[in-house]
Amino acid sequence: MNTTAPPPEADDIEHIALDEDYVLTAGFVEKVVDAADDGDGMRLRSLLEDLHPADVADLMGFLTAEHRAVVTLWLPPDLLAETLPELDDNIREEVLERVPHLTLAEALQELDSDDAAAVVEDLEDDQREKVLAAMPEVDRAAIESSLGYAEDSAGRLMQREVMAAPQFWNVGDTIDHIRKQGEDLPELFFDIYVVDPMNKPVGGVAVSQLLRSPRATSLAEIMEPINEITVDQDQEEVAYIFEKYHLISAPVIDAAGRLVGQITVDDIVNIIQEENREDILRLAGVADEDRGSSIPEIVRGRVPWLAINLGTAVLGAMVIGWFEATIQQIVALAILMPIVSAIGGNAGTQALTVTVRALATRELNSSNAPRTFWRELAVGLANGLVLAPLIGFAAGFWFRHEDWRIGLIIGAAMVLNLLVAATVGVLTPLTLSRLKFDPAVSSAVFVTATTDFFGFLIFLGLATVVLL
Amino acid sequence: MNTTAPPPEADDIEHIALDEDYVLTAGFVEKVVDAADDGDGMRLRSLLEDLHPADVADLMGFLTAEHRAVVTLWLPPDLLAETLPELDDNIREEVLERVPHLTLAEALQELDSDDAAAVVEDLEDDQREKVLAAMPEVDRAAIESSLGYAEDSAGRLMQREVMAAPQFWNVGDTIDHIRKQGEDLPELFFDIYVVDPMNKPVGGVAVSQLLRSPRATSLAEIMEPINEITVDQDQEEVAYIFEKYHLISAPVIDAAGRLVGQITVDDIVNIIQEENREDILRLAGVADEDRGSSIPEIVRGRVPWLAINLGTAVLGAMVIGWFEATIQQIVALAILMPIVSAIGGNAGTQALTVTVRALATRELNSSNAPRTFWRELAVGLANGLVLAPLIGFAAGFWFRHEDWRIGLIIGAAMVLNLLVAATVGVLTPLTLSRLKFDPAVSSAVFVTATTDFFGFLIFLGLATVVLL
Repeated sequence: MNTTAPPPEADDIEHIALDEDYVLTAGFVEKVVDAADDGDGMRLRSLLEDLHPADVADLMGFLTAEHRAVVTLWLPPDLLAETLPELDDNIREEVLERVPHLTLAEALQELDSDDAAAVVEDLEDDQREKVLAAMPEVDRAAIESSLGYAEDSAGRLMQREVMAAPQFWNVGDTIDHIRKQGEDLPELFFDIYVVDPMNKPVGGVAVSQLLRSPRATSLAEIMEPINEITVDQDQEEVAYIFEKYHLISAPVIDAAGRLVGQITVDDIVNIIQEENREDILRLAGVADEDRGSSIPEIVRGRVPWLAINLGTAVLGAMVIGWFEATIQQIVALAILMPIVSAIGGNAGTQALTVTVRALATRELNSSNAPRTFWRELAVGLANGLVLAPLIGFAAGFWFRHEDWRIGLIIGAAMVLNLLVAATVGVLTPLTLSRLKFDPAVSSAVFVTATTDFFGFLIFLGLATVVLL
Repeated sequence: MNTTAPPPEADDIEHIALDEDYVLTAGFVEKVVDAADDGDGMRLRSLLEDLHPADVADLMGFLTAEHRAVVTLWLPPDLLAETLPELDDNIREEVLERVPHLTLAEALQELDSDDAAAVVEDLEDDQREKVLAAMPEVDRAAIESSLGYAEDSAGRLMQREVMAAPQFWNVGDTIDHIRKQGEDLPELFFDIYVVDPMNKPVGGVAVSQLLRSPRATSLAEIMEPINEITVDQDQEEVAYIFEKYHLISAPVIDAAGRLVGQITVDDIVNIIQEENREDILRLAGVADEDRGSSIPEIVRGRVPWLAINLGTAVLGAMVIGWFEATIQQIVALAILMPIVSAIGGNAGTQALTVTVRALATRELNSSNAPRTFWRELAVGLANGLVLAPLIGFAAGFWFRHEDWRIGLIIGAAMVLNLLVAATVGVLTPLTLSRLKFDPAVSSAVFVTATTDFFGFLIFLGLATVVLL
């Protein structure tokens, strides 16, 4: 990254392994593959040992299952531990099956409680028992308590290690405590939570604020109000709070209001990416899949959506079937009808996507839903008034020798179908959201099915009435 | 949030203004609207003054332009300053037009240099000159230097305030310096950058690590390697590095390698959301729009895509036109043909979305592109082999009195079109990405145009050859 020549020592490995985009180079991946093929464990270890865990995880994604097995065998145990939380779910499950449970038990002790719990969560039941049994009591208890919270809850996300200080301490007391107890504190922390005698948080002091204040300053004097997270809050909710208020860390409290852990922003970044990934894939009708998914897994995730689409497409075909006699007389209608449904489907998808996104970022709620609906309807009308003349003239000219009124009919059908598209594009996700379903799931299939259905119905219906 | 009864003092306002989802309540918004309608400035100010700037920005999004004008007038100046960076672009531009330039000049001095620059960026040229002229030299210079960097670059994103310490200092020196110079340091910082005599970063010390170490410890002893960002790096690139390596802050260096600023993770969270928003909207053919956009702005953003789709739909219609004679003889083909194109379009969109997402997260690059392509082709074939019998039997039965071979033909056309969908779904974004275009833009229109074109061509072509 440095534009001057880099010193060829410490970051040597990085310069070989990563290109300027921070992606592993094809050359490096090839070297790893060669060493794995040769079974040259020493060479493998020397290639891998200076990599960042995130890069090891990336490397795993570029390898085949056979090569991953060899790499797993030769990874230094502490690097293996730190790599596990970074792996894609599918790959992590595969890797975990190959690691002996004693190695795993040892590796997990190196991790913060939230990361260790995330790994243990992915183990098969019998392996999980063996691994937990091989861990010291205190680490086992931390992991089991974490797994006791609902999946995707703040309790599962938090780390139990936290820096708390009683209200009556001053800056000097706090710094002395940190120097003495450093080992038991989280490896990194960004806020000190000030607690009352019941261990309930009453405020927070940013670490930079602590450093800036004279030793005699009381914590109560410099603490700021904090946003508390409750253990049972959903992770999506937690991410929203972090994002909205620009938090770096936040204290987690139990039902009685007592401090039980903290959540830091680096975990939140992962959640935001995960939620975005889900939204974008769900809108396209793709269930969870990642680069480790096998072809049968991918097909199982995608075929249901396509099958539903097949069903709705057959519905659309039935509508066309109602007008068989009309089409027989005027084949031009068969030629033009996909245009009406295609534009309707696209406009509906636009309205749908904007609505899903606004719901996800909470810009849209019950107080402005009616306004959003009328706005989309106005946009649909405006889109129609722009596009209808274009297609109207084109179709009228194209089929001028049969009946120029075909142009009028397709123009009118286009405007009406764009109003259908706006309506269904907004109301589908709003309704799903109000019913507590994910507005991204199966919205698109419903929207395009509706615009297909009405597109064919309006166009062929108008044509039958006017032309026959 | 607390499950016990909240103390009805400090957070009183929050309990009234926000529901349990951290969204402003309809009741609160109504109160603000009433006060604005009555021109009751004192009441407005008392409603607003305890809100978090992020909540004021949310409130603005729920109001009409007229009400926003009244609220802007009565916001306390420091709260107005902190609210400006939180506003949607459109709303910010509107608000900025109403704020007198002296008020604005004063407000901007309260902000970190990156936030102030972001606001100044949005001003009209003449207003910008007036505002900058009314600011103290040092603040003006900081903003002008920030605006000197390319939009979306690290230089624009960074704040110039940074906590740096020379290599030869120990922990005690550093803490003493922070206590003495606290005013000139960034309001919040999470890492201390250790620099050499040329002001080049040589390592970083997390603030919690500094606190944990005895005063006599030298910084060189506890510093860790750091990921440097260069001023001209693109913000998407910076976000990728933060996300991959779980960074909280990173030093920014100029072309000569000297420390010139820092970027913190809270800005990165915004960028990640912005990039995700762009990707998801672009895939649906929606240009930049937000809740502040007017209807003409929205239409201008969406119509071009619909018009392009109209063009490709006409291409598809022309393909159907080639087979006018065939359709005239067998109307069943007109009834069934939209099914082949619809499933192709959906499968192509699935492959496209997965590929765009994998490119965005850099899981996909030149080293695994061929494997991805073959995998999608296999998925397409498998999807086809599952769906073809379904539609084949259904269509064969439906049109059994005309010609049962229609079932065979639609099944075969479906399989072939799903192979087309997989091919174009993967290759379109890969090609755009290799040509340095955004793979999300206009991919979808090309993919569905191709599956429509080949869907009609294969189905009607096969039917003409076999049935006539």
